[in-house]
Amino acid sequence: MHDSIPLVRHMHVRVAAFDGGGLTLSAPLAPNINHEQTAFGVSLAGLATLACWGLLWLQLEDHEHTHIVVNESHLHYLRPVNGELRAHCPHPPEEMLRRFLHTLARRGKARVELKAEILQDGQICTEFQGAFVAYRENGS
Amino acid sequence: MHDSIPLVRHMHVRVAAFDGGGLTLSAPLAPNINHEQTAFGVSLAGLATLACWGLLWLQLEDHEHTHIVVNESHLHYLRPVNGELRAHCPHPPEEMLRRFLHTLARRGKARVELKAEILQDGQICTEFQGAFVAYRENGS
Repeated sequence: MHDSIPLVRHMHVRVAAFDGGGLTLSAPLAPNINHEQTAFGVSLAGLATLACWGLLWLQLEDHEHTHIVVNESHLHYLRPVNGELRAHCPHPPEEMLRRFLHTLARRGKARVELKAEILQDGQICTEFQGAFVAYRENGS
Repeated sequence: MHDSIPLVRHMHVRVAAFDGGGLTLSAPLAPNINHEQTAFGVSLAGLATLACWGLLWLQLEDHEHTHIVVNESHLHYLRPVNGELRAHCPHPPEEMLRRFLHTLARRGKARVELKAEILQDGQICTEFQGAFVAYRENGS
């Protein structure tokens, strides 16, 4: 993503953790600051979206010919973030993931809804919900 | 915004129009491209948010001591954008704006919902709905 999306490079996104709990991305405050000296809403939205996108991408078998796009997103900004940005996307329920991968394999296209949170000091600062569509090239 | 939000600078956001129709912001594709060679969803979300934020800011009387933050946003990505990004936020209904400014003046805080669209070749590519909260410093 760093190589092909300039804005992600400018955000200085890093993988903080990928384990049984899900995928956590982080980004320093400085390049993502707004005029209020807190994290820029667009950066928070972006980091949460990328955490879900990344988690989904890691589940795919054929990375080369499968694309993932965000179809819909809903964000709720609860508290400002005044330190490092951290977005956590937990693994979706196993059954949901199994159905998603099965539909993708059978129809060449599948949709799934994921959630992510921006956390600071154990408190939820931003809630993210997104619908993602994965599809194989040329419906192959 | 260019001076105080690094990411907005990296997006190369410009004011394309501000008139009776509302506020239109534009940004070139190159700095906002994704790995699919279309506009990055985060940039589309950002440009639509900024169009609404900017329109609201232009309605304020006391720019120095009033802050506007986005509280909630909903995005629907309908079609990819493969050229210049353009986000248009139309003026909200006059009565809604009057009520918003009246509440802000009386209570030092007010909330308003705005819509914006990303358009290309006359077609809607992205629909944005956002709730914004304006407040005066120290409830002054």
